[in-house]
Amino acid sequence: MHARLLRLQQALQRAQLDALALNPGPSLTYLTGLHFHLMERPVVAFFTATGEQALVLPRLEAPKLAHRDDLLAFFYDDDPAQWSQAFHQAIQALHLERSRIGIEPERLRVLELRFLEAAAPRAQFPSAAEVLASLRIVKDSAELAAMQEAVAIAQAALEAALQAFRVGMTEKALAAEVVLQLLRHGSEPELPFQPIVAAGPNAANPHATPTDRPIQAGDLLIIDWGATYQGYFSDLTRTFAIGEVDAELVRIAEVVLQANTAGREIARPGLPVGKVDAAARNVITAAGYGEYFTHRTGHGLGLDVHERPFVFAGNEEVLRPGMVFTVEPGIYLPGRGGARVEDDVVITTDGAHSLSDLPRALRRLA
Amino acid sequence: MHARLLRLQQALQRAQLDALALNPGPSLTYLTGLHFHLMERPVVAFFTATGEQALVLPRLEAPKLAHRDDLLAFFYDDDPAQWSQAFHQAIQALHLERSRIGIEPERLRVLELRFLEAAAPRAQFPSAAEVLASLRIVKDSAELAAMQEAVAIAQAALEAALQAFRVGMTEKALAAEVVLQLLRHGSEPELPFQPIVAAGPNAANPHATPTDRPIQAGDLLIIDWGATYQGYFSDLTRTFAIGEVDAELVRIAEVVLQANTAGREIARPGLPVGKVDAAARNVITAAGYGEYFTHRTGHGLGLDVHERPFVFAGNEEVLRPGMVFTVEPGIYLPGRGGARVEDDVVITTDGAHSLSDLPRALRRLA
Repeated sequence: MHARLLRLQQALQRAQLDALALNPGPSLTYLTGLHFHLMERPVVAFFTATGEQALVLPRLEAPKLAHRDDLLAFFYDDDPAQWSQAFHQAIQALHLERSRIGIEPERLRVLELRFLEAAAPRAQFPSAAEVLASLRIVKDSAELAAMQEAVAIAQAALEAALQAFRVGMTEKALAAEVVLQLLRHGSEPELPFQPIVAAGPNAANPHATPTDRPIQAGDLLIIDWGATYQGYFSDLTRTFAIGEVDAELVRIAEVVLQANTAGREIARPGLPVGKVDAAARNVITAAGYGEYFTHRTGHGLGLDVHERPFVFAGNEEVLRPGMVFTVEPGIYLPGRGGARVEDDVVITTDGAHSLSDLPRALRRLA
Repeated sequence: MHARLLRLQQALQRAQLDALALNPGPSLTYLTGLHFHLMERPVVAFFTATGEQALVLPRLEAPKLAHRDDLLAFFYDDDPAQWSQAFHQAIQALHLERSRIGIEPERLRVLELRFLEAAAPRAQFPSAAEVLASLRIVKDSAELAAMQEAVAIAQAALEAALQAFRVGMTEKALAAEVVLQLLRHGSEPELPFQPIVAAGPNAANPHATPTDRPIQAGDLLIIDWGATYQGYFSDLTRTFAIGEVDAELVRIAEVVLQANTAGREIARPGLPVGKVDAAARNVITAAGYGEYFTHRTGHGLGLDVHERPFVFAGNEEVLRPGMVFTVEPGIYLPGRGGARVEDDVVITTDGAHSLSDLPRALRRLA
């Protein structure tokens, strides 16, 4: 934690920010080791470029700060009319009245922003997204070990869930089984996301929510699931054939696997990440399905399930060893079905390594 | 849904708002029936006071809008540089360039706020929290039926989880068992929160996270858990004694139960909700433990796990039939243990009714 805070100080200074203000989420946990829920009562952590730390939080959270004399704490009680005072106290104690205070736009809510603005009306609140990405985008060996374990849990859980699969089972029932097996195999309870289990025409929706439709012969079945270990996520997808499926559905599954392979194989240090998207997309376009691959090829993965680097066409962000992202091309034929194959890939010193090794080819169930 | 949208139009007009802008969350689902994840790609729904609706969203979400010709859709692709254009198009199509556009400060992120501000630099973005609370705070009979089912699932799941309890089990293992049983008993997978299982000294922390500490003889054990049904939540707490416990720990559990009873019994239409807090708190203060009841007595419950009305000292919000909130007094003795008893209470035409009926007295396990 200490090394991370030192790197943060340097990054804040480089970005000409006087401080960083974070609400509950992965970045706050990454920098403090503390975990708070995002609720109607604001919790904000401040980190200054000179190394001071403070927290504004409800009094009932005080037990979490026992033995944490590295943090100045400003508590408030239950009446919302008194909350702004704690923000004023923190801003004054850290001398941030006229500062540039970086925030995380994808996390910080208007709730917290308005308290900050009221406590420091002459301060500015630019995005610190770059600062936080610069800290978190390259994973160290402990982080990679946690992610490898999150992948191992997910893979073992899926095999166990598939043992319970029967033709006629609903998507919801299979999704519940995947969740049960994730927990039984050691996932932390805050999953990266609720598993997507989508079959037949529903598999043509890349962000489908499991339904009461029975999974039936002739369907392609997409399962997109992940586990959590020490706060780090895995995020995988495999596609299955239920009995005999139409020849074109088999074909799209083959093309998607080739695209996944092309994306994984081209990834290496020094490459703009947009080239990974291009490698996967070119395979699908050449096969005549370009218009049915309706999303980017992947996204960074870590303490957030979607973080930098984002794998989309033309993204010039350059890959470096220790970056982790998904490679997950898909083809979606409206009304008929879809296929997607997703792996979690880490950039090594001379190439890329997939943390996931569950067989990728279309697998027949029943 | 149509009746809700009509009530929204009237509420917006009363609040002198031209429109409402919502990101993914319970209010968006309440008004549209649609469900989106909160991710790095913004999704914003607009509702005007004249009854128009529009959505800004990533193109890959298009399948969710099939057959929804009640909504204008503005899609964007994967390159973030192009996202602002979709916001501009929506603002222009709805003629909101200079409008008062209400937002939800506890949900809307700076990410979406900045896109809105850029698309409508002459618009204002006041809080619409009152408007949304006025719609959602009184539950109709279908909502109450869903909440009753969420309570029934939670109660049955706890009984099943307790069958697996053994002295020496860790808090984490018991918490995982509670989650498994919630899912087996029919809870939707997005739980209201991860169960709190806190024993011995950990039970003195009202927001404890389950640890690897074995639960042992002499502990008070607090379990705070809930289920989800049709998006609606339950939120319950019971306290258990592991074998023989110290007489003062038995005493605080008794006092907390009396406080819970006092809170439930005083609740009725027309009463300021702060009086519910006072009734519960007076019992604890009279018993000499006032300083160890460190939080408000409860919070409203529905599609959010914490929503209005908030049950804190002096809150003048007046109770009305159909409001649902928790009554959850607690006593926390640092280093020794704690007790809390929580029920979900609905205001009726002439009093209050607890949706939960699991026995409340201190129950001995092992």
